[in-house]
Amino acid sequence: MADVHQRVARFRPIGVVHSPFRRREDVDPRRNTRPGGFSDIKGELEIDPAFVPGLKDISGLSHLIVIFVFHRSGPGHLLVRPPFQKRRRGVFATRSPHRPNPIGMTVVRLLGRRGNVLKVSGLDMLEGTPILDIKPYTSRDSKRGVTRGWMRDAALNR
Amino acid sequence: MADVHQRVARFRPIGVVHSPFRRREDVDPRRNTRPGGFSDIKGELEIDPAFVPGLKDISGLSHLIVIFVFHRSGPGHLLVRPPFQKRRRGVFATRSPHRPNPIGMTVVRLLGRRGNVLKVSGLDMLEGTPILDIKPYTSRDSKRGVTRGWMRDAALNR
Repeated sequence: MADVHQRVARFRPIGVVHSPFRRREDVDPRRNTRPGGFSDIKGELEIDPAFVPGLKDISGLSHLIVIFVFHRSGPGHLLVRPPFQKRRRGVFATRSPHRPNPIGMTVVRLLGRRGNVLKVSGLDMLEGTPILDIKPYTSRDSKRGVTRGWMRDAALNR
Repeated sequence: MADVHQRVARFRPIGVVHSPFRRREDVDPRRNTRPGGFSDIKGELEIDPAFVPGLKDISGLSHLIVIFVFHRSGPGHLLVRPPFQKRRRGVFATRSPHRPNPIGMTVVRLLGRRGNVLKVSGLDMLEGTPILDIKPYTSRDSKRGVTRGWMRDAALNR
């Protein structure tokens, strides 16, 4: 594993999220425990004009995977306390933004495209979030029989 | 959007993938068009010991989102020709590894944990792939009513 450690991956944002959430405090964490929690939150993915040719063929897709930077997160922790929880959990068993590598992933619904702007719903990112990548969501990403471990117990205990 | 462009995101791998696929040529791209295409491919996620406390609570989760670096990909392109296709497609409408930011995302099934090693199935990554992040897969990530645009047409035309 030694040579992997020495490498640092550098990425340049391809665009930016426009969201009704201006600050972290605007996001209601209770939505996170509901399946359709953010489905009615609409906004835009504004793509740097230099990358617009890469949006070709995107309009037929219903859902997109957005990979982004948690640009407002604090330092990464290995144990984090999720909202409404008393116990600290391993960060890789949570969706906390305070991660060793502050990378986020959200699946959004594509509502339409106008030039370099994608209209989407299902946003849970903050205004100004740097976008690193956009990918088509496919049937391989849609899993059944998902068990959620501590998160299920946490939801039941509230 | 100006200030987003100037920022470069730097990430340090938290671990490495151990996979039966040693080279790109070992991966059969036809699996990508099948829903369970890679579900029987088993391997390991070896986490750097420094990050092992972050694995707490992970064992109850059935599926994990793995964010990784396409470390063997070539230069990023905005138009790419998917396997078996004649037409070039916008890279953000494909899962091509040759992306402006070579970041990959795969959902795997967690089979078990031993110390800093997670046994998983559903791997489509190459041996030695640097892992940037691991997240729990939740019901919010499982979408229904997915339409695949050009990919559906491509599958029908083969």
